[in-house]
Amino acid sequence: MNNITSLLPLKYPIIQAGMVWVSGGKLAAASASAGILGVIGAGSMKPDLLEHHILKAKSLTLHPERLAVNVPLLYEKTKEQLEVSLKLGIRIFITSAGSPKIHTSWLKNEGCKVIHVVATPEFAMKSEAAGCDAVIAEGFEAGGHNGRDEITTMALIPQVVDAVKIPVIGAGGIGDGRGIAAALCLGAQGVQMGTRFVLTKESSAHEDFKNALLQAKPESTHLVMKKLVPVRLFKNKFYDEVSRLENSGATPERLAALLGHGRARAGMLEGDLEKGELEIGQITSLIKDLPTVEELVEKLVEEQRRCLPGGAFF
Amino acid sequence: MNNITSLLPLKYPIIQAGMVWVSGGKLAAASASAGILGVIGAGSMKPDLLEHHILKAKSLTLHPERLAVNVPLLYEKTKEQLEVSLKLGIRIFITSAGSPKIHTSWLKNEGCKVIHVVATPEFAMKSEAAGCDAVIAEGFEAGGHNGRDEITTMALIPQVVDAVKIPVIGAGGIGDGRGIAAALCLGAQGVQMGTRFVLTKESSAHEDFKNALLQAKPESTHLVMKKLVPVRLFKNKFYDEVSRLENSGATPERLAALLGHGRARAGMLEGDLEKGELEIGQITSLIKDLPTVEELVEKLVEEQRRCLPGGAFF
Repeated sequence: MNNITSLLPLKYPIIQAGMVWVSGGKLAAASASAGILGVIGAGSMKPDLLEHHILKAKSLTLHPERLAVNVPLLYEKTKEQLEVSLKLGIRIFITSAGSPKIHTSWLKNEGCKVIHVVATPEFAMKSEAAGCDAVIAEGFEAGGHNGRDEITTMALIPQVVDAVKIPVIGAGGIGDGRGIAAALCLGAQGVQMGTRFVLTKESSAHEDFKNALLQAKPESTHLVMKKLVPVRLFKNKFYDEVSRLENSGATPERLAALLGHGRARAGMLEGDLEKGELEIGQITSLIKDLPTVEELVEKLVEEQRRCLPGGAFF
Repeated sequence: MNNITSLLPLKYPIIQAGMVWVSGGKLAAASASAGILGVIGAGSMKPDLLEHHILKAKSLTLHPERLAVNVPLLYEKTKEQLEVSLKLGIRIFITSAGSPKIHTSWLKNEGCKVIHVVATPEFAMKSEAAGCDAVIAEGFEAGGHNGRDEITTMALIPQVVDAVKIPVIGAGGIGDGRGIAAALCLGAQGVQMGTRFVLTKESSAHEDFKNALLQAKPESTHLVMKKLVPVRLFKNKFYDEVSRLENSGATPERLAALLGHGRARAGMLEGDLEKGELEIGQITSLIKDLPTVEELVEKLVEEQRRCLPGGAFF
């Protein structure tokens, strides 16, 4: 039992990241059943769709207490997303992409645990001051939206650990048990893994997207849109267009116009590998299999133990 | 004893990185005496100056067998640098920034150990095929010159470990014993640390540069010059100029003209913190002390042991 497995009702200190279009009720339920935190990514969901996924997750697992919702704080429907989650019994929230000051007190008063995602030690301190129970320190190599300062997981975790007293969960670039052990050596008490869970049977990523990822090379992802909201993408035709615009010194407005609407849904959920926006972490090229979540969690625990010279973190 | 301490005559599997203007004979000798590999950075040295530093290092340590020379393969004097080193008894070489095919066979025939620095698994395989004894897998967060694919240490080490049979040494973003243990969990057999050794009493970095680094923040470095040769710099007035040019879509030629000659010497050795080029790794902000090399190595070994749940890597 460490600080994460005593804070949250988990068997292992592992969080399956909430991800747009990928982590719905099915994936979250499989994670909860496997002993880790199953997170529904609400970023892409209107409140009624979120309700559907929470109900689905609860119907698919005997461990609803291990279900959480990830709420990016930049959408207009944030408050409604939180309210519907609370109504349906969710008591663990992961918040990101906004100030932890806005909703943390309210959620804490409702008996919730609140974990904020940060990309700098400075935001970790702000999260602690706002009353968060833990922070997720997510590095430059992570998929999807990312910090502006390009601080990598290796550099970020120990500096966040030194900056706050609340538990730190490491994220970004963690693809197997070796990465988990490494993050825990750096001082994290647990890990959040996203990309690794995209490549499971239960994730709702399109099969064509999964198959493309299984062929990924170490250089297949890149952080772009730095003038807008930095995001790590899998390189495809859409990425090439973004990249060309950026290298020519385009304005944020022109980039926003290219991005448009529905690109992420088209790419990740519907499998449009040319025009879609494909968010994924740099560690994707390490991953060459497509297990069930249960098989994966067992493997991660075993790998983590095997790469240590003695003892084990969990 | 692991694969690195049996390959090289070291007490601990730690390499003090060769760095331009920072790691001369004095620092290398202190490292050799402390039980790790002491590396003279030949990048900035004409053959006669390199001779002076090798002789100086040999006069300052009882362990000349732990001295090595780092030779970037992009200068015209590379062959002469290698010849003068061989003449003076150096039998360990670290090569970088070029093809490992060019000099490895010759050096191996002379009874040397050759370690090549790589930024991708693909180059690690090429180094193994060229006969190198080990590779240093150096991530995006490392200071100075860097790979084009921005692969971080966390993502790079396990993929290089999986790609080759020769030992892998991790580098980039390692600033204390926690980072060492993390790299070894990822599958590395040893580590190379640069930035941490800039901040020692024996490094020849200018005092003003050292003092500026002790005030560094997590966002104080950035990788620039991506159209030329990517390099991670400490943010100062010179960096601002480079950055402004890059964001306006400048050509490689205009960037090269701004870079000019002697910028790194002016910054790192002579302490011109405004106009100088200050190469340093992202982990610099973790480091808040200026120990002797001997004090540092003892602390690193102890920290590495303390952050593991049981046993120790060394």
